[in-house]
Amino acid sequence: MSFNSFGHVLRVTTWGESHGPAIGAVVDGCPPGLTLSEADIQPWLDKRRPGASRYTTQRRESDQVRILSGTFEGRTTGTPISLMIENEDQRSKDYSDVAKAYRPGHADYTYDAKYGLRDWRGGGRSSARETAARVAAGAVARLIIPDVRIRAFLVELGGDPIDRSAIDLAEIDNNPFNCPDPAAAERWADALEGARKAGSSLGAVVECVADGVPAGWGAPVYAKLDAELAAAMMSINAAKGVEIGDGFAAARLRGEENSDAMRAGPRFLSNHAGGILGGISSGQSVVARTAFKPTSSILTSMPTIDREGNETEIVTKGRHDPCVGIRAAPVVEAMMALVLADQKLLHRAQCG
Amino acid sequence: MSFNSFGHVLRVTTWGESHGPAIGAVVDGCPPGLTLSEADIQPWLDKRRPGASRYTTQRRESDQVRILSGTFEGRTTGTPISLMIENEDQRSKDYSDVAKAYRPGHADYTYDAKYGLRDWRGGGRSSARETAARVAAGAVARLIIPDVRIRAFLVELGGDPIDRSAIDLAEIDNNPFNCPDPAAAERWADALEGARKAGSSLGAVVECVADGVPAGWGAPVYAKLDAELAAAMMSINAAKGVEIGDGFAAARLRGEENSDAMRAGPRFLSNHAGGILGGISSGQSVVARTAFKPTSSILTSMPTIDREGNETEIVTKGRHDPCVGIRAAPVVEAMMALVLADQKLLHRAQCG
Amino acid sequence: MSFNSFGHVLRVTTWGESHGPAIGAVVDGCPPGLTLSEADIQPWLDKRRPGASRYTTQRRESDQVRILSGTFEGRTTGTPISLMIENEDQRSKDYSDVAKAYRPGHADYTYDAKYGLRDWRGGGRSSARETAARVAAGAVARLIIPDVRIRAFLVELGGDPIDRSAIDLAEIDNNPFNCPDPAAAERWADALEGARKAGSSLGAVVECVADGVPAGWGAPVYAKLDAELAAAMMSINAAKGVEIGDGFAAARLRGEENSDAMRAGPRFLSNHAGGILGGISSGQSVVARTAFKPTSSILTSMPTIDREGNETEIVTKGRHDPCVGIRAAPVVEAMMALVLADQKLLHRAQCG
Amino acid sequence: MSFNSFGHVLRVTTWGESHGPAIGAVVDGCPPGLTLSEADIQPWLDKRRPGASRYTTQRRESDQVRILSGTFEGRTTGTPISLMIENEDQRSKDYSDVAKAYRPGHADYTYDAKYGLRDWRGGGRSSARETAARVAAGAVARLIIPDVRIRAFLVELGGDPIDRSAIDLAEIDNNPFNCPDPAAAERWADALEGARKAGSSLGAVVECVADGVPAGWGAPVYAKLDAELAAAMMSINAAKGVEIGDGFAAARLRGEENSDAMRAGPRFLSNHAGGILGGISSGQSVVARTAFKPTSSILTSMPTIDREGNETEIVTKGRHDPCVGIRAAPVVEAMMALVLADQKLLHRAQCG
Repeated sequence: MSFNSFGHVLRVTTWGESHGPAIGAVVDGCPPGLTLSEADIQPWLDKRRPGASRYTTQRRESDQVRILSGTFEGRTTGTPISLMIENEDQRSKDYSDVAKAYRPGHADYTYDAKYGLRDWRGGGRSSARETAARVAAGAVARLIIPDVRIRAFLVELGGDPIDRSAIDLAEIDNNPFNCPDPAAAERWADALEGARKAGSSLGAVVECVADGVPAGWGAPVYAKLDAELAAAMMSINAAKGVEIGDGFAAARLRGEENSDAMRAGPRFLSNHAGGILGGISSGQSVVARTAFKPTSSILTSMPTIDREGNETEIVTKGRHDPCVGIRAAPVVEAMMALVLADQKLLHRAQCG
Repeated sequence: MSFNSFGHVLRVTTWGESHGPAIGAVVDGCPPGLTLSEADIQPWLDKRRPGASRYTTQRRESDQVRILSGTFEGRTTGTPISLMIENEDQRSKDYSDVAKAYRPGHADYTYDAKYGLRDWRGGGRSSARETAARVAAGAVARLIIPDVRIRAFLVELGGDPIDRSAIDLAEIDNNPFNCPDPAAAERWADALEGARKAGSSLGAVVECVADGVPAGWGAPVYAKLDAELAAAMMSINAAKGVEIGDGFAAARLRGEENSDAMRAGPRFLSNHAGGILGGISSGQSVVARTAFKPTSSILTSMPTIDREGNETEIVTKGRHDPCVGIRAAPVVEAMMALVLADQKLLHRAQCG
Repeated sequence: MSFNSFGHVLRVTTWGESHGPAIGAVVDGCPPGLTLSEADIQPWLDKRRPGASRYTTQRRESDQVRILSGTFEGRTTGTPISLMIENEDQRSKDYSDVAKAYRPGHADYTYDAKYGLRDWRGGGRSSARETAARVAAGAVARLIIPDVRIRAFLVELGGDPIDRSAIDLAEIDNNPFNCPDPAAAERWADALEGARKAGSSLGAVVECVADGVPAGWGAPVYAKLDAELAAAMMSINAAKGVEIGDGFAAARLRGEENSDAMRAGPRFLSNHAGGILGGISSGQSVVARTAFKPTSSILTSMPTIDREGNETEIVTKGRHDPCVGIRAAPVVEAMMALVLADQKLLHRAQCG
Repeated sequence: MSFNSFGHVLRVTTWGESHGPAIGAVVDGCPPGLTLSEADIQPWLDKRRPGASRYTTQRRESDQVRILSGTFEGRTTGTPISLMIENEDQRSKDYSDVAKAYRPGHADYTYDAKYGLRDWRGGGRSSARETAARVAAGAVARLIIPDVRIRAFLVELGGDPIDRSAIDLAEIDNNPFNCPDPAAAERWADALEGARKAGSSLGAVVECVADGVPAGWGAPVYAKLDAELAAAMMSINAAKGVEIGDGFAAARLRGEENSDAMRAGPRFLSNHAGGILGGISSGQSVVARTAFKPTSSILTSMPTIDREGNETEIVTKGRHDPCVGIRAAPVVEAMMALVLADQKLLHRAQCG
């Protein structure tokens, strides 16, 4: 089975380590004839790019994508699209301590337990740098579903939720937190500054809304649209929870509160279900929320062990995001796009 | 792509509708030489069986499983194991109203939107009856991971959580709610009785703990153990959220609180991560929680539309669980077993 | 990976042993709304049924198929179609010798080497009885490609080829050999009678022609239409070779002889390619030929070993086809149908 | 479904066009800890490299491979191995005629029929240049099966077979034809020179033998080792037929001639089966033969049509192999290695 591929008929394979020469994605199964150049991909990568504000890692990467195959005269040909991003700022020396001991909360110990070795430079393959390849692939996926609008934004940071009545999607790009509530953004700035100075980190919850998804995408049982989304979101680094629509809150509602009544149109009188019923889209907005744990790389000393099993302490120096959830928002969008584009093609396969 | 199959090298395909002649599962890729007879499967099905208490549907099904292939002289041969359960109590007449209008919260509308038709008898393929096939398959999966102990139990019902300090796994079988806290079980009995009398329903949260999972199962990126579990759990009927370890609560912790420090052994000083780091098991208990919405089949009249789009009201008569989360617990266990057994085999493939 | 499943978006999983209670197939991904009942499947099974003439095994099986799921009111619903055929004539006692020693040419030794055990009753899973499930599934596949006409027939038996100028497809059903050349059929009757009396067996070559396949099905590189057909045909019991169009004879042509020139239409002036160019159908007839070895079950004594490695001799009694290629023809047709239906859906997924 | 991926647990995805900036392969699922550098791959690419003799295309490509991910300190880490080969000699101008009309025998028409457009520069994705990526991936696969020795060689060229009693594998590298029979190599030199001067081309049959494969690899029914090999070989450009062991000749043998008797050891008294019984390796040499049609690019004028359907003639100028079968030998070896390595891992998954 393919550990580094995602999707069914639109299938993405990513490769690359944090400190290798490059990272990339191969997008297979893309419909032919779509207009595609680097300019369609780069803006999405720029949204995820590190170093954009003091609230993100200071690693310097221009993240310039190159299309190496799959297009001809500016259009997709139906053959695999190979996307490559060269790594530029690979200061491996920052990771000398990491080579010696396992960083708590990281994949250091488990990779070693599984593979008997690990690329300790910046987390190797377990680095969130892999997500740049997802964002590039997601940009291709968006071309397949031009009528779907996808936005991801933070609804909670460090346990401080936004005021949902104040959501203004136009605000998302006006602050460095992908926050749709300006007041919350101000509070978050303080909280993050505090955490950063304390050598600590904060978690976040990212909501993603896809509008324009027609009724009928998804499939029963094991390829349910919500199951696909759950896997997609949970596969993002630092994700610890996923919910659809009301999610965990739905478990606290009564049946008559939670069921979305229908009226002619068809239209629904509410959207507790998050746009998915029985694993198939209902035509309402598809809504998914993902919880991201606080960055595990912190300046606070933590008890750990080295490869030989000796007890020691570790401080994770280097250049880290104080809240990985912020830069996760474009990754969440990319995964939503990849799932939906794949499901569109799957639906077309079975139902014409 | 296979919509009704699950797993990579241990692969389960389920089939069957609520009111067809039978349902079943084909388990492919099972290692040879395992002792297997119907007696290894039946007890797990009995735990999920309807009609066991007044808190579950009164549909009468003995759920007797037959092994049709894949064993010889009481042992698995390595060839596909075909499991069949005949449907017995298929009172289709109960569903005459359902044929005319879409039940809110159900898959009625979306199946129709997708396929242009639907089997309206008891929800057809979207019925939770399909989960009996999962439980049967999960019983086979358990044989592949004999050193892993899996328990699922309700930690919240109708918004009323258990007292975690009172958890006693021995209590789970002493009440009809799969509840490890006897005091909570008493409160839940009252709440459910009230909901049932009011023609309403309640939601629940099911926690599943797997002990004995060695470090090293799972795989990076898109086959992360937590991503596989998220898909597995979210594919269960009525599931709306999945979290691993501290899950959404982890998003409210600070980095130093959330990271599980290590000491010689290796052992961890806490398990916020739920036994998974970087998508790979750490050797700690694997912990997943799944939120189930309240049963959508309620006696309260709900606004809806018929197939022609005319507005109408519907009351979902029939025999329904007032809280689907209760009988979901054995299904959650089965999905945990299927994921872990598959990952064990995948790990063996790559790492020997 | 699924060892007993076939196809990509139309996916068939078969199960069952020669002497178990039943065999079956689950067909997943079938488009909804197709008219389907047992009467659409049974005629194809009858063509493959044993005991139809003295040139096939005398095992008596009525091979009655039951549809257990996936249809409602006579039409496919888009959910998995479970097909079951009960085994009736399972005289296991015939196989007592087989339990002790490995039959040369059979899978006895290799199953044992792989799994450490085997179901020795009639070959268990390695029995050609499994192909009945393929034929049933193929009948469903045919409904997906109603404009494609598929015929398979023997072009060689026991090394004696037909006269290709005498091919008359209407003759195929007029003899017990699926032979389109009446004169060859008469010769084959003598040859087979001789082989049967001598306790021997003969091989055959089966040609399969699919008309009505539009240009554009198939996909480059690893899902080439010819690669899919090669796998499909080679997966049939006793198959030892597959060729497309001129096949091995093409290797003896010069470039200008082998290339099929085009004229307006488009039409081709020849079909050396067998209807496939670059792995994609050209709109010409798709032509595949499969070589079947002589039945390995023969009355001639053969040197072999028992499970303990001791040398012995074995005579394979029981009821066997003197030429398995004859009854392979409907299986070849089924595999062609399954490949083409799957590729039709795949093409629709990517290219709309 | 993934059109450009191959394999189950060892999974290769290739990308790239004949005249794009580069081609490549991503090898996923490789076991960790294997020693791997470019030096392990380059020699195999050199064997396939164009321009090595006057009997192959004069396109100049150094085919230098770069490993972009998946190794650390000279060993595989278990993460995806990204291999890239830059295209150097991409004289697109050679293909101006190709842009206007469809070359008979090529994929020009079918790609256009499928995708509605095509990259006409050198065949784009349908170019045999893609096979360089397979050879690179195959070099990685060889590391997984160090005890297996794989050799491919031509047994027939232009209809002229070798003398099998004269086979000397040491001779393969002593002539530009991968021919194990020196006398045949001399005859082939003349034949090819004649074909080249006549603006024609010749076909070939490539035999591949894998020694050291233990009994037990492969799996019943749809993942039979021979079915996997058939798909692998048929997916190579210009392949038109595949046979295992005696192949089509087996269809002309009698049962007692074709069955390979066994003696203590176990050892077999013959190998008509080509090392595979019931889809599972028997411990004998695995033998597959693949037929390659004559190169479709010829200097002889052929009738064809242009994109608008007008009749015209085309002469395929450019730099082409007069017999693609010669350079196919290392590709055949690579596919054999990929199948066997994958099956080794699959066998380990199920059977430990």
